[in-house]
Amino acid sequence: MSKVVKLHGEGANVADAGAGVRKPSFDKLARLVDADMARVNQHILDQMQSPVSLIPQLAGHLIAAGGKRLRPMLVCAAAQLCGYTGSRHVGLAACVEFIHTATLLHDDVVDESGLRRGQESANAVWGNQASVLVGDFLFSRAFQLMTADGQLKVLKILSDASAVIAEGEVLQLMTANAPETSEEDYLQVIRSKTARLFAAATQIGAVVADRPLREEEALYSYGMNLGVAFQLVDDVLDYSADQAALGKTVGDDFREGKVTLPVVLAWRRGDESERDFWRRTIERLEQEPGDLEQAMALMTKHGALADSLERARHYGAIARDALGVFPESDVKAAMLESVAFVIDRAY
Amino acid sequence: MSKVVKLHGEGANVADAGAGVRKPSFDKLARLVDADMARVNQHILDQMQSPVSLIPQLAGHLIAAGGKRLRPMLVCAAAQLCGYTGSRHVGLAACVEFIHTATLLHDDVVDESGLRRGQESANAVWGNQASVLVGDFLFSRAFQLMTADGQLKVLKILSDASAVIAEGEVLQLMTANAPETSEEDYLQVIRSKTARLFAAATQIGAVVADRPLREEEALYSYGMNLGVAFQLVDDVLDYSADQAALGKTVGDDFREGKVTLPVVLAWRRGDESERDFWRRTIERLEQEPGDLEQAMALMTKHGALADSLERARHYGAIARDALGVFPESDVKAAMLESVAFVIDRAY
Repeated sequence: MSKVVKLHGEGANVADAGAGVRKPSFDKLARLVDADMARVNQHILDQMQSPVSLIPQLAGHLIAAGGKRLRPMLVCAAAQLCGYTGSRHVGLAACVEFIHTATLLHDDVVDESGLRRGQESANAVWGNQASVLVGDFLFSRAFQLMTADGQLKVLKILSDASAVIAEGEVLQLMTANAPETSEEDYLQVIRSKTARLFAAATQIGAVVADRPLREEEALYSYGMNLGVAFQLVDDVLDYSADQAALGKTVGDDFREGKVTLPVVLAWRRGDESERDFWRRTIERLEQEPGDLEQAMALMTKHGALADSLERARHYGAIARDALGVFPESDVKAAMLESVAFVIDRAY
Repeated sequence: MSKVVKLHGEGANVADAGAGVRKPSFDKLARLVDADMARVNQHILDQMQSPVSLIPQLAGHLIAAGGKRLRPMLVCAAAQLCGYTGSRHVGLAACVEFIHTATLLHDDVVDESGLRRGQESANAVWGNQASVLVGDFLFSRAFQLMTADGQLKVLKILSDASAVIAEGEVLQLMTANAPETSEEDYLQVIRSKTARLFAAATQIGAVVADRPLREEEALYSYGMNLGVAFQLVDDVLDYSADQAALGKTVGDDFREGKVTLPVVLAWRRGDESERDFWRRTIERLEQEPGDLEQAMALMTKHGALADSLERARHYGAIARDALGVFPESDVKAAMLESVAFVIDRAY
């Protein structure tokens, strides 16, 4: 019954995203929103300033480290897809990135992480206290940015998303160290903590452009399903990618006893002696040298990584079909290709 | 030059607040806003619910522990002072309490406190991780509550206040362990982290009642100066009140190396050998048995506690005079008496 998963060298090509036969990437999307993102990045830099010098120092550490700026790019792409020609998306894209950055700062405190995007995490440099408080500042600044936008519908979308993200983070904490967590509970966690902000980001594109509800819902669905696929793949990569590729150590989730889909599937498909292994390593965190390799071997034996990627493909397909209501355009093609990239980065 | 400060048994009477000769208290204010506060408390309970059970558990622990509900009471009192007869103050009072509660949760993580209001703090019971994340949830819920109100002016007041609070908390972290901190920097910290939310609470009363700017500014000034006086007295109490009175251990600030006005004054008035004592205990946190007593003796020698209370009286006087633009009324008298109470609780 075991399946073999090749995590490298077997990528889907980009033909199904309608963009020729090459490895899918974010490059096309990045090019299309390049001018917008220059304004967004400037806005982010302006808005993280404070007379309290530790705030721009610490926020700058994380924001300069960069990451993909995926969420603000999605705001810009969705606005462009909707033919929006105004400027509101700039402040809102910065707002979405601030919510995300605040979450990362608090995540690193919660996870007691020492690394983030391949460099020392803010809590490792400045301490947990500063990370908690600067995270609070960035959250507050995000709310100032949405207040500056001033449309109540936008405020509702983003404040609801923030509350759901926090609920998802708490739910994740509650499922930590519980390998018998159901797939549904796992999905609830990643929908809340990750996908909901993707959905808010893309939905906002339709809202600022004042597009009909049908398009708004389509973009919400695109963002939500893309976000679920994104997190699923991230969770698979934690058992497969090398540190260099992601800027993080393989096995972080394992060492923290975080329960992600590969663990859920391996647990459900495993026998009692395997479950004893998961109880010892994930539940009681009694880990020994070789345990991570054993975990990965069990996942491979049960096809847990390959099937987690299959699940990601399922959500990716829904994300792509959601865009069916929009006419063909460069930005639509780039958004479709981005779905393929999110999934294929695992290969 | 030394002054003797009697911290007990020498209270001002309430004559100057125009309410007869008895110890000033919050009782009158509490009675006047009693019906409103019943609605506010119900709203707080409703709004801290979540399908994620740890959230109402942890939030309930802190919210049930109670505290004075001072900030929502101020929203209700200010609305009443302005003749407001609607219902918007209920949601906004809950919102203000949520911001405050979120701050407390994160404060306890930052301070590594084990006690809050005389019982085990949330982080001691559920861990720092849960406290950080549930604090984030309460912040987000606060923003949902202000969005539900929907007036952009209110959103701006409260989101600005949140950002300033976070800045104040970071500034406090930066001045921690620095006994040479200036009085101005100390004031900046307490204006930001404490008084600004008081000011927002009372300002909102005028805004929902649609009162002229003059009254809005008067209520902002009342809240701001009351808040400064409140924090000054709190900081004095940490070197004087017994644990039972406040539900906290005397000397918390000292043990954490927090720099409050009593330390600032004792440092400025001390000689080099005394400054060596402060450097060792506050800066390097090399504390020995008897150090707290020595700190309190130095503060008494230099009148640092008595003069901190004098400063509190100064801000209290400004708070009282700010209300001069309002005609006499029961609620005005109660708000004046509350200023006296905030200061006299130190006696």
